Amino acid sequence: MQYNFLGRHILVEYYNCNSDKLIDPDFIEKHMVEAAVRAKATVVTSDFHHFKPYGVSGAVIISESHLTIHTWPEYGYAAVDLFTCGDINPWLGFDYLEEIFESERSESIEIPRGMTEKIRKFSHVPLGEITFKPM
Amino acid sequence: MQYNFLGRHILVEYYNCNSDKLIDPDFIEKHMVEAAVRAKATVVTSDFHHFKPYGVSGAVIISESHLTIHTWPEYGYAAVDLFTCGDINPWLGFDYLEEIFESERSESIEIPRGMTEKIRKFSHVPLGEITFKPM
Repeated sequence: MQYNFLGRHILVEYYNCNSDKLIDPDFIEKHMVEAAVRAKATVVTSDFHHFKPYGVSGAVIISESHLTIHTWPEYGYAAVDLFTCGDINPWLGFDYLEEIFESERSESIEIPRGMTEKIRKFSHVPLGEITFKPM
Repeated sequence: MQYNFLGRHILVEYYNCNSDKLIDPDFIEKHMVEAAVRAKATVVTSDFHHFKPYGVSGAVIISESHLTIHTWPEYGYAAVDLFTCGDINPWLGFDYLEEIFESERSESIEIPRGMTEKIRKFSHVPLGEITFKPM
C-alpha cells in the first residue's frame, strides 16, 4: 500500500526528561541542530530564546522544513516537532533528542503533510508530477 | 468534559491558494507575524527564507510557542502550523491566513500538546499545579 505526500511531520512529547538539559538555550540549540544533521537534513538557520524564569523555545529551519522545541524544565517536559521533506528520516533526529534530553518516556505521532492526491484534486489547473525538490 | 494541557497545536494544509501569495518571503513573513498578532500572541522573533526556484519557509517564535510555514507556490499549497499556549485562540490566526493566501480549500486538525495528567503520571517527583505561565 502506498500514498504520496510532500513531508513527514513527527510531533513528540518528551516526558520526564533531565530538567537540567531543558534549561540552557545554547545547549538545546546545539543539539537541535545536531538532530537535524543526524537526520541528514541541511540546516539553513536556527533561532533560540530563553524565557524567564525558565523555558526555551526555538526553531531550526532546514531546507527540508523545520525542527522546533518548547521546554518546561520545571515539569521535565519538552514539546518537539520534526518536519522533513524528501528522502530523509526524521526519526533519526527523534532518537538523538530522546537520548540527549534523557527522556524516560516519550509519545510521538507521525502525520503526513501535503498529500499529493489532495493537492491535485483541489487544484483547478493540471499540476504534473508533485514532488519535493531538494534545493 | 474537560482535560488540561499546556498547548494547542493546529496543523493546516492550505490547498489551492493564490500561488502569487506563496512566493514572496517578505509578504509571507509580514502576514505570519500578523496572524500571531491576530491570535493575541506576543511575537519574539521571526525568520523567513526563500528557496530557489521557489518556495518559502519560516518560523515566528512567540512567547506562547510558534507559527511555521512551508510553501509550494507551484502547487498552490502551504503547510502551516500554529502552536499556542495559554488563553489565546490560534484559530484566529488560521482564519486570517486562509484569507490572505486565498486558499479555496483547507484541512486542519488540532492536537493538544503537553497533557498535564500525563506529565504528572510519568514524573518521579511531585509537580504541583501544571500550567502555562505567560512571560
